[in-house]
Amino acid sequence: MAQPNEKKWVIGVDLGGTNIGVGVLPIDGGEVLALHSLPTEPQRGAKYVVDRMVSMIEQSMQEVLARHGSARAAFAGVGIGSPGPLDRETGTVINTPNLGWRNFPLRDLISNAVGLPATLDNDANCATYGEWWLGAGREVDTLVGLTLGTGIGGGIVLDGEIFHGVSDAAGEIGHMTIDSTGRKCKCGNYGCLEAYASGPAIALRAVEGIEAGAETMLPDLVGGKLEDITAATVYEAVVLGDPYANEVMKETAKFLGAGVANIINVLNPAMVVIAGGVTRAGDHLFVPLRAEVRRRAFRSAEEACQIVAGQLPGTAGVVGAAAVFKKETYGKV
Amino acid sequence: MAQPNEKKWVIGVDLGGTNIGVGVLPIDGGEVLALHSLPTEPQRGAKYVVDRMVSMIEQSMQEVLARHGSARAAFAGVGIGSPGPLDRETGTVINTPNLGWRNFPLRDLISNAVGLPATLDNDANCATYGEWWLGAGREVDTLVGLTLGTGIGGGIVLDGEIFHGVSDAAGEIGHMTIDSTGRKCKCGNYGCLEAYASGPAIALRAVEGIEAGAETMLPDLVGGKLEDITAATVYEAVVLGDPYANEVMKETAKFLGAGVANIINVLNPAMVVIAGGVTRAGDHLFVPLRAEVRRRAFRSAEEACQIVAGQLPGTAGVVGAAAVFKKETYGKV
Repeated sequence: MAQPNEKKWVIGVDLGGTNIGVGVLPIDGGEVLALHSLPTEPQRGAKYVVDRMVSMIEQSMQEVLARHGSARAAFAGVGIGSPGPLDRETGTVINTPNLGWRNFPLRDLISNAVGLPATLDNDANCATYGEWWLGAGREVDTLVGLTLGTGIGGGIVLDGEIFHGVSDAAGEIGHMTIDSTGRKCKCGNYGCLEAYASGPAIALRAVEGIEAGAETMLPDLVGGKLEDITAATVYEAVVLGDPYANEVMKETAKFLGAGVANIINVLNPAMVVIAGGVTRAGDHLFVPLRAEVRRRAFRSAEEACQIVAGQLPGTAGVVGAAAVFKKETYGKV
Repeated sequence: MAQPNEKKWVIGVDLGGTNIGVGVLPIDGGEVLALHSLPTEPQRGAKYVVDRMVSMIEQSMQEVLARHGSARAAFAGVGIGSPGPLDRETGTVINTPNLGWRNFPLRDLISNAVGLPATLDNDANCATYGEWWLGAGREVDTLVGLTLGTGIGGGIVLDGEIFHGVSDAAGEIGHMTIDSTGRKCKCGNYGCLEAYASGPAIALRAVEGIEAGAETMLPDLVGGKLEDITAATVYEAVVLGDPYANEVMKETAKFLGAGVANIINVLNPAMVVIAGGVTRAGDHLFVPLRAEVRRRAFRSAEEACQIVAGQLPGTAGVVGAAAVFKKETYGKV
């Protein structure tokens, strides 16, 4: 196996349905350099997206070369995080509804275009691995990550390795059933955690209550257009002291608490890292969340587990994708 | 490390709240020999229970020695499965409500009394490990076990090793919330899988329906005493063609399906092994169970996972306790 210290840099790529993030990491860890984000624009087709990723990688490399005077040979390779399901062995994206891709050999297309080895892993796995390598989880070996956004992504790190399951499908924590006869989820199932605690689900619950007559400043924050209420509007109102918005946030904490307690009862991790915009609510979220988990989880497992906010907002995916490259190439991070 | 082939036999002990099971396994696997089961009678006190375990172990050893002409040195040691939570490192039972024990050094008491090394692990972990070693899971490396009895025990085997989590508390799958505002569970939480699909929960749901006016042969099977209806009565009625009992079994399959789908979405195992009396319902349980899982789980994870009945009814715990001893002593099973 190659030695990481022959190389200086690893490139991390975080491909999402909305944005592409690219950055460069010192191979021994540190700050993300030459970080860039551009819209994915998947409607322009797969070739367009790949070309954009390649040009972003080239730009980041050039910036690092210019600033640090390294030779191109100082780049070990590229770690790519992508929505799944994926086949990691072949580096293929099997199916991503957000991008419209099927059986798409993303890893090798990128690798060939930039002339560097590359790895591919699930975006939610990468975000969790990033928090483990350089973020909230750097002092623990076993943690579970949840990223609350348009959906709820999940990742599991056991003894410093991403746990993939037998067909690269493990970690779909957002699709745990917490109410078996509950709300319909986009995945087709009923009562998934994601159907209650994703950004759009938080907004939807808020709007439903307003339509049912709740008194709140929320409509004023969006000029009366209820359809413009997002999870961010809800946090804004919480911070401004709106009791109804605070109620919506407490409910979110209860649903999330059921999901986190399930994780704790099943996996007994040292840490659960919650990432995404919702963590901006701070104690308004985490205080009732931890209380709900205490009510639901077994004490010995609950006491062993910290529940914390992610420390790498916006970069966890890039950092984790680079960490996956390092792990797969050198056997350790 | 010692070599297993210097020894011939391992003793497995399955300590439950109701019964103690003891048997002897050939160290390379095979049939359970000298299998015995006696009531635990925990109300007689911890010393009584330990003495009974020790005399059962001695009896099983004597039988094997008499039949197979081995020397006592042919016994490698004793694996013990016990209700938890446990501290595996010190061999201590931290707290078992069923037995009334707290911080009880079970492993060393047994080890000293029989003059053999011993190991201690959770009973549900042992049952799952037994199915992995010599039962339904012998062809796979990653599986999850659920034992439906008075409660619902769970165990997780990843790459041929029991997954314990960071404080020996992993695998409490029976206490996953599947209905966050649902039935109260004995553990204090609401809506646990166990509150719907354990033996007593199945019986309770059946009785509730009868009290609400359901037409069924169930009361006739217990001489009109509804309090005598157990999960076994429900299976009996299912086999006799009772439509209401079949409805109760289908509901059980739906609740269980939500729990199994959660496991599959999170852990993506190659197999889920369901054990316990409820599996006697056969296709009446497994056909609707698999259908519910297909509805709820992600296809790529669901397709990778077999859902099967345990193959070691009554002995999985003994076999698995012996397997844990072998694993901890020799590094592999």
